[in-house]
Amino acid sequence: MKDFSFLTDQLYGKKSFLCVGLDPDVEKIPKIFLNDPQPLFSFCKTIAEVTESLAIAYKINVAFFESQGPNGWIQLEKLVSCLPKNCLIILDAKRADIGNTSAQYARYFFETLNADAITLHPYMGLDSLQPFLNYKEKWSIILALTSNSGSQDLELQSMSDGKYLFQKVLGLYGTPDSRNQVMFVCGATHPDLFLEIRKICPSHFLLVPGIGAQGGDLHETIRKGRNDSGGLLINVSRSICYPEYQKGFEQDVYDSALSFQQEMMEYF
Amino acid sequence: MKDFSFLTDQLYGKKSFLCVGLDPDVEKIPKIFLNDPQPLFSFCKTIAEVTESLAIAYKINVAFFESQGPNGWIQLEKLVSCLPKNCLIILDAKRADIGNTSAQYARYFFETLNADAITLHPYMGLDSLQPFLNYKEKWSIILALTSNSGSQDLELQSMSDGKYLFQKVLGLYGTPDSRNQVMFVCGATHPDLFLEIRKICPSHFLLVPGIGAQGGDLHETIRKGRNDSGGLLINVSRSICYPEYQKGFEQDVYDSALSFQQEMMEYF
Repeated sequence: MKDFSFLTDQLYGKKSFLCVGLDPDVEKIPKIFLNDPQPLFSFCKTIAEVTESLAIAYKINVAFFESQGPNGWIQLEKLVSCLPKNCLIILDAKRADIGNTSAQYARYFFETLNADAITLHPYMGLDSLQPFLNYKEKWSIILALTSNSGSQDLELQSMSDGKYLFQKVLGLYGTPDSRNQVMFVCGATHPDLFLEIRKICPSHFLLVPGIGAQGGDLHETIRKGRNDSGGLLINVSRSICYPEYQKGFEQDVYDSALSFQQEMMEYF
Repeated sequence: MKDFSFLTDQLYGKKSFLCVGLDPDVEKIPKIFLNDPQPLFSFCKTIAEVTESLAIAYKINVAFFESQGPNGWIQLEKLVSCLPKNCLIILDAKRADIGNTSAQYARYFFETLNADAITLHPYMGLDSLQPFLNYKEKWSIILALTSNSGSQDLELQSMSDGKYLFQKVLGLYGTPDSRNQVMFVCGATHPDLFLEIRKICPSHFLLVPGIGAQGGDLHETIRKGRNDSGGLLINVSRSICYPEYQKGFEQDVYDSALSFQQEMMEYF
């Protein structure tokens, strides 16, 4: 079981907050993988093998597999089964529906695929996420404050009590006893708001997108977002999966991941 | 192209608001289908063939296919390609992500599957749905006020201007010129609020779940929710897919759909 202690052990053991985001875009992955009948699988597996000692989690972007139809799902199932056991395996699927339908998603992702975590939309309320939360040994990672500019449209709109909508989301799902199975997505593009987030959820883990291609600042994120347990999974997708060509794909991926981990090391 | 005029033509031609929800639960579908190597496909296709003259739309619950892994997606692709051409084909997938990821989902559902419509989560804001909205000949059906009790948790919370969050969602995505490509999910379990919804979106189509198993009142929904174009797709899933056994599956499905359509007829 990859629980809270597992995560903190990995984090302090590897001196890393790094979550490697696996976004296998068939229009961008190196040509060597396109000769493979399972190019998405091979591409992601190679990245994971190369970065295993530096990462504490992998976040698989399900859309890139789904867009390939049934053959994409075959590759996704195979990938999840062979990613490093000493890392948290997150399926970034952003699901949520009414109860009987969420139960179908939860069973597939948590039982059939045996992933450790899934990302979820909060909009439909508690009963829509309950089927995921019923898996107490799995992680539900709920969108709170996302890294895109559209976060202004609703997430950063004020409620009648003066709080932003994303703060309402944190309060609704982030009860103190949920820290062993709930995390929140909080984007690095809003670093000043990490202090507000930590007032509501001081002890929860946060999954932080927005570093790298999206322009978030790594050091500001760590300084303002970390807590006594570490408390951060900092995701980097494009900057690691698609590094500038220098020494060959595997070495370039490793070097890119290493440069992020080395910047993180100073906080341990 | 199944545009606004197509929908109103179907609606007045068939004197029906009926959207048949296809929720193929392997634990509930009749045993005759379980001998088929593609039971979800056969079950849904049979229901569609039987109800084609009564329905104006089919809403496929993607989770029930996704939960079956790659073989589920094979069945989903086959199903979408052979549903009646004189009905709107909605994939109830409830997706949404940052732009480059939503683009993957949009391409698969709108191009590869060639569905007419998809359901979407509004939480991440306009830029997260833009890749879907870029398909101007397809429908984006955005969650506003859902039928589950969890709609109280966020959707029915008040914003600083005194409006509910779902009203903010309607205002954000429901500009007058969007009525040819945007609909909203508004549950029949909140009939009194249809009047408020119509103040913001007088001319948009609404996809209405919550009739039947969830307890919403059909007549109150029509009286308060319809507009000059009809303006409603009223979804019924379980009451049609899983009718009480009387005369055999196909006849029972037809009879159930007919009883809903006959109740709707009086409004034409």
